[in-house]
Parts: sequence; structure tokens; C-alpha cells
Amino acid sequence: MTFSSTLLENAVEEFAKLPGIGRKTALRLVLYLLKRDSGEVHLFSETMVKLRDEIHFCSECHNISDEPICHICSDRARKHDLICVVETIRDVIAIESTQQYHGVYHVLGGVISPLDGIGPEQLQIDSLIGRVQQGQTLELLFALSPNIQGDTTLFYISKKLQNLPVKITTIARGIAFGGELEYADELTLARSISNRMPVENYLGNQIQP
Amino acid sequence: MTFSSTLLENAVEEFAKLPGIGRKTALRLVLYLLKRDSGEVHLFSETMVKLRDEIHFCSECHNISDEPICHICSDRARKHDLICVVETIRDVIAIESTQQYHGVYHVLGGVISPLDGIGPEQLQIDSLIGRVQQGQTLELLFALSPNIQGDTTLFYISKKLQNLPVKITTIARGIAFGGELEYADELTLARSISNRMPVENYLGNQIQP
Repeated sequence: MTFSSTLLENAVEEFAKLPGIGRKTALRLVLYLLKRDSGEVHLFSETMVKLRDEIHFCSECHNISDEPICHICSDRARKHDLICVVETIRDVIAIESTQQYHGVYHVLGGVISPLDGIGPEQLQIDSLIGRVQQGQTLELLFALSPNIQGDTTLFYISKKLQNLPVKITTIARGIAFGGELEYADELTLARSISNRMPVENYLGNQIQP
Repeated sequence: MTFSSTLLENAVEEFAKLPGIGRKTALRLVLYLLKRDSGEVHLFSETMVKLRDEIHFCSECHNISDEPICHICSDRARKHDLICVVETIRDVIAIESTQQYHGVYHVLGGVISPLDGIGPEQLQIDSLIGRVQQGQTLELLFALSPNIQGDTTLFYISKKLQNLPVKITTIARGIAFGGELEYADELTLARSISNRMPVENYLGNQIQP
């Protein structure tokens, strides 16, 4: 792509650094910004800088927050003896959107993945064990990705906690609601058969953690 | 989507204003920026503001430019008697990428489209006629979209220029290179038959404007 302007080229290069944005998409976004009022572009830029420089990570659960302690951890109405362990902030947003979970969270920041150079020390595992060691926690609910890295992380943390009196659970795996049986992969289908549940549980199904 | 941070929510809203970016994609992009160094985010923001506030539109051809006159219009090696009329800056970039066109451009800023409230007065048509009236132009090459709005614009401008001694041409329409005949639409196929060309032209085909 040949640009007639260095300013334009720099802006396109910056946008093209974002994940999933190619140079053609970047050009489209930049030309859109160019048509906006100068004030709108200033607002866009300031919002990004403000986010980057003023954001906190909750010192309890490592969730993103405007305050040193996030609004979930500081909410006395939530069950502080139930901790849901997730990989990223996006998982917290997804679970919060269900409005069915009333415990607190712990954001690991990823899963153990030796191939990507991510070991336990890069993740917030020690602080999770520290929280459990305080003795207030009754249950750890793991909601990690259903793959080898997620399972490794689950196994590693369970092992570390085996002498502590805490119940360790994981979210149910099975055929998704609205999912067609014939298109489900074999592993999911096989596991959903071996983990079959009584019909009365299924029909009266309400998440009540 | 429920956010645990107003700063995060504002940033996602700003990204989601961009065309083709939904809230989930916006969140992914914002979380990516959050992981970068503060300096990188500042650079990203400053580049956008700088582009918006310092960019020029060439006073000759209305192309985007770092200077009041763009580098194409100020290039004495180019043929200034041949003007390619395009809709947007993106078309200039596309044609420049071929490295086969050595004339200059005129960016209309769109095409006549009464349904979208775009009439001739919103476009750079008067300045195009002004350029032709200076008497230096031998040929106007139209490279507009092959649709009713593009054809209307072509017709409107040709009518305005009918008493001036300038040749008006349009880029060739036909089956694209690599295009399968059976998947071409009927109009394109019909036109490519009625506008058939001698084989010697086709084989020796080099754009030599």
C-alpha cells in the first residue's frame, strides 16, 4: 500500500498493530476518524491514555477496577467464601452478565502453558493460595478453558491445596443449550453421557451457588 | 455486558463507535492496549490526534497530504494533462499501488446519491470543472463505482464539460483476472462481450496512459 501522507501511514501502522486488524481495515478506521470532529478524536485518544494510566488491578482478585479494591470484592452482600477462578477479565465480564453468580473472583491472568513460556510463577497462583490459607474460603469454583492447559492449571492448583479444607469444583461441561447433538464433538458428547444427571435436577435447574 | 470499571467501559464505548467494531471486538482491542507499555498507548493516541489536527487536503486534487499540495500534484514527472477522477482517497491508494498510472488525480469525496442526501454541491465537482477550464487537461479518466450512483455522477460531469475540448474516458469493465466465467454476473458478462477487444491488444496489454 502506497500512502500519500506520512501522518496517514503512521496512523494506519498504529491501528494495524491491534490484534485482528489488517492494514486495509486499519485504513478504513483511520479514514473514519479523519471525518470526525477534532473533539471526538481527542476524546477517543484521551480515553485510551486515561484507561492505561489510571486503571487499577484489584489487590484481592486482580480484576480490573477504578479503585484499589474492585466493586465485587468490596461488596459485602456477595459470598466471600466462594471464589470463582478464571483466566481473564473477559471471563469475569461473561460470568457477571449471567447475573447468577454471587461469589467473588480470582483472575489468574492466563493458564499454565510451557510452550508459550507461561509457568505458575507468571500467574496469580501464589496470591490465590494465600487467600485460601486465610481460612475464610469454603469453595473454589474453577471456570478455566476446557483444554490441556486449563486442565494442567486445575491439577497444579488442586495439588497445592490438597492439605487445606476447601472444596474444589469446576463448572459443568456438556452439550450447550441450543446445540445440535449431531454437531457436538465426540469428547464433549462422551463426557456429557458419563456425567449424566437426574431429570429432576435438570428441570429444576437454577444456579444457586 | 457488565463492566467492573468505568474507565474500561468508556474505552470500549469509544472503540465500538468505529465502523465494523462491535462491543466484543472493542473489549478485545482495549484489553490488548491495556497490556502494552504506557508509552505505546501514548504513541497510539498522539498519532491519531496528530493525524486529525495536522493533515491537509491537497488544494489541487483533494487527496490527503502532509503539505498544502500533495506529492503527486507537485511531481513534475507526472502527466498533468491526464486527470483520474475517483471517489475517495482509498481509490487513489489502490491505483497508486498498481504503479501503472502516471497522471494526476481528482478526489470527488463521493458520488451523487440523492437517497443519501448527496448532491453535486457536496462533492468536489466545481473544482474539477475549474481545473479543466484552465485548458491544460487533455483527458479525464473516470474510475468511479460501477453502479447507478457512479454512472449518474459520470453523466452529470460529462454534461457539464460537453463544450470543453477534453477527452472523457472510463476504466475498462469486464471479467476480472482470475475470475471464473460461470460466476460472473450477467450484466458484467454481457458488457464484456459487447466491449470485446482484438486479441493483439489483449496479449500486448500494458497500461500506457
